[in-house]
This record gives sequence, structure tokens and C-alpha cells, in this order.
Amino acid sequence: MPDHHSVGATQVKEKRQWTVRASEFAKCTFNPIRSIVDSMKLEPHPDKHMIALSIGDPTIFGNLKPHDAIIEAVQNALHKMKFNGYAPTVGYLEARSAVAEYYTTADTIVSPNDVILCSGCSHALDLCISALASRGQNVLMPRPGFSIYRTLGAGYGINSKFYNLKPEAGWEVDLVHLESLIDKNTVAIIVNNPSNPCGSVYNKQHLLDILQIAERHCLPIIADEIYDFFVFKGEEFHPLASLSQNVPILSCSGLTKRFLVPGWRMGWILIHDRNNVLNVEVRGALQSLSQRIIGSNTLVQGALPDILRNTPKSFFDETIATVQENAEIAFEKLQLCPGLHPVKPQGAMYMMIGIEMRRYPEFVTEFQFVERLVSEQSVFCLPGKCFDYPDYFRIVLTIPKEQLLIAMDRIMEFCCDHHIEEKNAGQHIVEVNGEQVHIDHTIPHSFCGGMAKT
Amino acid sequence: MPDHHSVGATQVKEKRQWTVRASEFAKCTFNPIRSIVDSMKLEPHPDKHMIALSIGDPTIFGNLKPHDAIIEAVQNALHKMKFNGYAPTVGYLEARSAVAEYYTTADTIVSPNDVILCSGCSHALDLCISALASRGQNVLMPRPGFSIYRTLGAGYGINSKFYNLKPEAGWEVDLVHLESLIDKNTVAIIVNNPSNPCGSVYNKQHLLDILQIAERHCLPIIADEIYDFFVFKGEEFHPLASLSQNVPILSCSGLTKRFLVPGWRMGWILIHDRNNVLNVEVRGALQSLSQRIIGSNTLVQGALPDILRNTPKSFFDETIATVQENAEIAFEKLQLCPGLHPVKPQGAMYMMIGIEMRRYPEFVTEFQFVERLVSEQSVFCLPGKCFDYPDYFRIVLTIPKEQLLIAMDRIMEFCCDHHIEEKNAGQHIVEVNGEQVHIDHTIPHSFCGGMAKT
Ligand SMILES: Cc1ncc(COP(=O)(O)O)c(C=O)c1O
Ligand SMILES: Cc1ncc(COP(=O)(O)O)c(C=O)c1O
Repeated sequence: MPDHHSVGATQVKEKRQWTVRASEFAKCTFNPIRSIVDSMKLEPHPDKHMIALSIGDPTIFGNLKPHDAIIEAVQNALHKMKFNGYAPTVGYLEARSAVAEYYTTADTIVSPNDVILCSGCSHALDLCISALASRGQNVLMPRPGFSIYRTLGAGYGINSKFYNLKPEAGWEVDLVHLESLIDKNTVAIIVNNPSNPCGSVYNKQHLLDILQIAERHCLPIIADEIYDFFVFKGEEFHPLASLSQNVPILSCSGLTKRFLVPGWRMGWILIHDRNNVLNVEVRGALQSLSQRIIGSNTLVQGALPDILRNTPKSFFDETIATVQENAEIAFEKLQLCPGLHPVKPQGAMYMMIGIEMRRYPEFVTEFQFVERLVSEQSVFCLPGKCFDYPDYFRIVLTIPKEQLLIAMDRIMEFCCDHHIEEKNAGQHIVEVNGEQVHIDHTIPHSFCGGMAKT
Repeated sequence: MPDHHSVGATQVKEKRQWTVRASEFAKCTFNPIRSIVDSMKLEPHPDKHMIALSIGDPTIFGNLKPHDAIIEAVQNALHKMKFNGYAPTVGYLEARSAVAEYYTTADTIVSPNDVILCSGCSHALDLCISALASRGQNVLMPRPGFSIYRTLGAGYGINSKFYNLKPEAGWEVDLVHLESLIDKNTVAIIVNNPSNPCGSVYNKQHLLDILQIAERHCLPIIADEIYDFFVFKGEEFHPLASLSQNVPILSCSGLTKRFLVPGWRMGWILIHDRNNVLNVEVRGALQSLSQRIIGSNTLVQGALPDILRNTPKSFFDETIATVQENAEIAFEKLQLCPGLHPVKPQGAMYMMIGIEMRRYPEFVTEFQFVERLVSEQSVFCLPGKCFDYPDYFRIVLTIPKEQLLIAMDRIMEFCCDHHIEEKNAGQHIVEVNGEQVHIDHTIPHSFCGGMAKT
């Protein structure tokens, strides 16, 4: 469109066209999961109802619901009519006190001043990453890992460097690789424990090993602990901060997962800073950044003390029992599928499954495998690509058991239909938590024959 | 602290100290109001209770409360147990549909796809600014104006250029000045109507004049309309988009002010883009950016259709009547104060008052005037500095009338105590909405004498 006005009051050089570009920030803010999923052909089989094992929302199937105490707490906050105005951008003192109390132990004292309430854990992570790292600096993050770390950093021109996790060692960090990535532009390490997408839960020694590297290089850690305490029976969750002497930790968590209210957008940062390293600049930076969107919903903040105090332990135990049972079922079933190598989770809500791609010559990548699994079996799993980890796919374990069983049968059928036999290709030894698991894929073949079609 | 570890597994050059710096982004994110207020000596007079005319939270005094229909809507959403999971990052379709319906008129059709729900209007503004402008580009914004525009932009390295508003013309935009600021790096104009801090409401012609400049330079407008429809009797609010033929408008609003729930953090962007200019890149950019913090609270989203449909008009009328009555009282009283020049508002919740500083030789700036007003009279007003506008201060008009009356008397007393007479200094003609208002400050002197001390 040519410029049809020339009566400008001033001599400004005028633009000629309605071309409105997006910013660099926006162009670099890119959620790979969203665009990968959008690029997939997701046509379910017309005769089979879709089973989505893809979505990390524990409430989506309707089997897991927040406890009455949680709902009541918000109801009370609503009717008190005291929580409608602006809260301080870091959150009400009462709400921060409740969070501090919740995390305080004999060893770790958390003060309300160490708590910043955020609009979900994503916002907490955004504040931490953007408070610590500038354009051209880098942050270390796990691979496979939750994609939001990279998404959040990329907008600011922060580089993501990925340290490897070792599937053969229950997804522990490859410490040598982690340390090798540290350079003069590295400003922080992100540790996600318990993990999405792996479901791994690190033991004390492993966390101490990670801390030692951080200490050696004087790097603060952003601990994504949104699945804190969400660990299976027999496992133990160690908050990273509880093990740290000198390494400052920004621990991010929230109500999202364990309290089964992802949509409520209630997250928090706990600032663990024994030696006042973060006091110099970073604490103030986090507070400044919290002013950008003026904090999180005040009704949920008002309810937070009651939510944290009144939600019974049995509620968490039940959720975890459901997920753990599903994990065991899925692991057992998938182990029997030719060419699949599930890695047993210890917590959170997910499991990663390796695909021996050479036994599926029809598919070049796991992406195609997953796509076809939708079109033939109406089972949707997230391809490893979403976590920067090809040849794997992730399933969620929060689905009702009956649905899970159907899904597992369908995956088995799919694998039976598409795998090829290969001399010795099926013989695998996978190490899970130091245990050697022998998987003999000559068995599932016969097993395939006896499978009922679903 | 010297590096006491040298057993690194690799040859990485190690840092020697625990020096953790904040990012540039954080350092540039700077809320002037917060730091100005923090830097003030705010010691109220011990014998007088503090009256804070400073806080733009209409719920803070307890006289203005959200309507029952608003509370009920959330209560219902809470108990439906359908709004606990993740919503799409732009918001539930039902909620966006309700917003679209709310803003649709015979002339302006808003589709649910044109709505992005955000975590408050601040978040909406953040998305708009960061979607449109990159480092080194600039955005035009009003002076005096709400400081968050600059705060939000500065982090990204976006430059703020301030166009003048004219107090003598009811705070209309100085159009010549506005246009003179446009250069090749200008990417958007922010227009705030009704205005904080001015309380101005622009007439149709003035908005058309602004649109014409935007059109001439092919610049999209970010319309901060968080006070939409919040106008005094006899005034009319024109949504900027309703007047635009070709200029794409991102209109930002939300529940915050008019529905009296600032803490709930429910805002939205309406994308008005008749000619599909923003479709090319910006719409997608806004959607991508909404994924960073995964949207706004789902309970409020779930309640939004009922809130927008069921809140009676009388509720808004009552709030506005309260504010308007206060505006009239305050204007009348402050006009009588020697050396003060209130500018009559037409909407929103604020009034700006000019100080003839040469009649207050004790104070170098309005900042000192305001500080002393606290220490002597326990009345706290925001200094113009907070809005980049010296020699003025802002009061909020949502306070209970009795408190306002006390505050006005105290300000009068303060002015009587501190002003000096000056030959003709008191004779002023102020133009408000085209009306010439003659203010004779020889009257207040005698008036001062008769004032009861409060
Ligand atoms: C590891 C991890 N961190 C953070 C988040 C984000 O949590 P929120 O919904 O509270 O932003 C998720 C959500 O899936 C997650 O898996
Ligand atoms: C002009 C203006 N825009 C935006 C906002 C921010 O509104 P919210 O609280 O919804 O973020 C305010 C709040 O005071 C304001 O005055």
C-alpha cells in the first residue's frame, strides 16, 4: 500500500506500508512441544477411541481431583472478601509464611522473605532464569528435559547447554559431561528432580555430586522441584537445598502437580542462600522481576495457608499409589514389547521408553513411530523429540488403570505388527538403578501371537 | 573466597569466587513508583491517622467491593471441579467467547480468536510490548503516564519515548509532539484512555486524530483500556478499536478495576486487525508469548462468562457515582487551596493536581511537598515524579467520602501554612475540556483563616 498521506505535521520520514513485524523476543520464544505436536498427523483410528498418554495434566482424565480441603480453602478465601485487592508482588506475607513453614525442617529454615509466590512454576522458572542470565550467557539444563527451560531462556538470548542424563543409570546426570560444559559464560545449572520426562528421583549421593560441581565452579543451581515429594514408595525425595552447604539454590515448585490444580497457577521460588551470595543482587532482581505481572492470584494466595496445612497426607499417598501402580503395569507390559525399552520411573508422573529403531525399519524416527501409533491404535505418546531426545517416547502415568491397560495392549499390538526379528537384536541388558535387567525379546514374539485385539 | 577445590574432572577454567550477578534484564526492570516511594521519608504525624491517597487499588479502603454475582460466579466455577486443569495458554474458549461477546457491538465484531486472556492487564501489556518491539526500537507512551509501560519495555532494551499530554486541555495528547517523536525505530504507540494518572477521557475526535497519526506512519496502537467504560455521567467512552479503520489495535483490559478484583489477575488482549496486518506475525507472537507462563488462573476463567453476563449495570454505576462525587468534592476543595491547580477528571479513579512551586519556596520539588504533607498532615499523595511529571501530585478518588473530606481539609491547612502570597501569582486561568476556569487565589487566603484544624 503506497503512502497516501503526506500532510504530516512534521518532517518525519514516513513508513510506506502496513508491515508490522514481531519482535526478536517473540520469535525466539518457541515451545517445541507445541510446534512438534502441531506438525504431527494426529488422525486417530476411526474404530478406536483416542487415548492420550501425552498430556502432563494430572486432572485431565477426571480420576485425580484436588482434595476437598483444597477446594474449601479457596471457598473460604473467596467469602472472606479479604483477598480481592492487590497483594504485594511477591505474595501476601501470610501465604509466604505458610510456604516457608511447609518447607522448614530441622536442617533447613525457610523464612517468609525467602519465598516469592509466582504465577505457576513456569513463572518461577522464568524469574530465576531471567534474573541470573543475560544475553550471550548460558545455563546448563538436562537432556532429556522439560522444554520450557530452553523456551524461557531463548527469548532473552540466553544460550542453553544440555548435559546428558544416563538412561542406563536411572537417568542420573552424566557428571563428567555436565562439568565439561561449564565455561566462563555459564551462570547457572538447572536440576530437575523428580524429573519430567524421566520420572527419575535422585539419591542423596548423586545430588551431593552435582552440588560439588556447582561449588567447584561457584554456580548457583535452579532446582526445578515441581514434583517435590512426589516419589514412589521406598524412594526418598531430597530437596537439593537440604544438602547444600555453600551452593545457593533457587528452588521452584508450586501447587500444580501434587495438589492437582495446574490451572490455578500457583508456584513459588524458595531462595536458599546460606552465605548471602544472592543477597548482593539476585534477591532484589527476583523481587523487581515479580513486579512485571504483579504476582499470582490472590484467592489462591489467601487459601494457601489452609491448603498447605489441611490437605491430608493420605491424599498425596493415594495419588502416588495410583501413579506407581500404573508405572508398574506399564513397565511390565512395555518390557514385553519387541524393541521397546521402558526405563522404570521412581516418581513424578511419567515414563520414558526407548525404541530400538533398527527393529522398526518402517520408521525413520520415533516421531513417525508415534504418529503411526495414533493412526493405527489411537494411542498418543509424546515423541522424544519434544525433550530433545530421539528414539524415545514419553507416556503419562496419571490415566485411569483400565485406559492404561487398553493403551498397553494396543502398543503391544502395534509393536507386534511392525517390528522385525533380528538375530540377537532382541537380547538386551538394561541397567536400572544399578540393577541389571535382562530383557529377552524372543519372548514377546510368541506373546504377540496370543494377544487379543482391542 | 579462594578456590579450594582443584580436583575438577575436566580442564575447565574455574571461577574463583561466589559472585553471582543479576542479569541485565533484571537490572533494567525497574519500577520507579516502588523506588520513589521507598526513597521517601514517610513518617506520618503522630496525632493524625494516615490517609493514603496514593494506592490505585479500589478495594483497599473497604468501601468498594466486588458484586455478589462476581463472587458467586467463582464459587460456582470452584464447585464445578471443571476448572482445575491446564487451560489453553490463551484461555478457555468459553471464557474467550464471553469476553468477545462482551465487547462485540454492531460496529465491532470480536471473535474468541481475537481474545488472549492474561494474568492481569500488566501481563497483557507485557505481551503486547514484547511482541511488537525489539532491542533498540522504541514505543511512544504518554507523559504523564502509568510507569509500567517503561518498566516493561526497559528490560528488553526497548526505548520509551514520551509524548506530552496537555493539562490545560484535559490532558489531551499534544499531537504535534507525538508525531515529532516518530522515527524509523518506532514500532508502536501506547494510548491510555481513560487515563491513570489523569482521569481524562478522550472524545471521539481526539481519538480519531491520534488514529490518523498512527495511520500516516503505519504504526499499530496498544490501547491500555483497563478503565474502559469507567467514565463519569455525561462522558462517553469510545473503545479506540471502534473508531479505527486501518490501524491495528491491541486493546488491553481486564477485571481489575471496574470489577474491583485487582488481585485476581484477570486481564486480556483484544486483537483488532481488520486488514489482517497482525496476522502475518504478531498474532502468532502473542500466542507464543502466552506460553511462557501458561496463562491466567482457571477458576477466574471458568467464572468469566457469568461475571461478564451477570454483574448488574447498577454495580458499575454505583462505583462510578462514588468516584465522581469524590472527584467533585476534591476538585472544589483543592481549587480553593492557594497555589494548587487540580485538573478535573472525567473518569477512572484519579486526579492530578498541579502545584505552583514558586508559591511554595520551602520545597524545591513536589516530592518534598508531598513528603512534608505526610509528616505534618498524615496525608500521602503520589508525587508527579512517579509519572515522570514534576510539580504535580496524584490522588485516588476511591476513598470513603469522610476520609476524603478530612484529607482535603488537611491539604488546605497544609497549603495555608506553607504558601506565600505573591502579587498576581494566584490569578490563574485553567482550561478544562475547552472550558475556561478562572481561579482566584486571593480568596483562599481569607478562607484559610476560617478553617477548623483537623
Ligand atoms: C519439570 C516441570 N517443571 C515445571 C513445570 C511447569 O509447572 P507449572 O504448570 O506450575 O507452570 C512442569 C509442568 O509440566 C514440569 O513438568
Ligand atoms: C493505566 C493502567 N494500566 C494497567 C494497569 C495494570 O492493571 P492490572 O492490575 O490488571 O495488571 C493499571 C493499574 O493500576 C493502570 O492504572
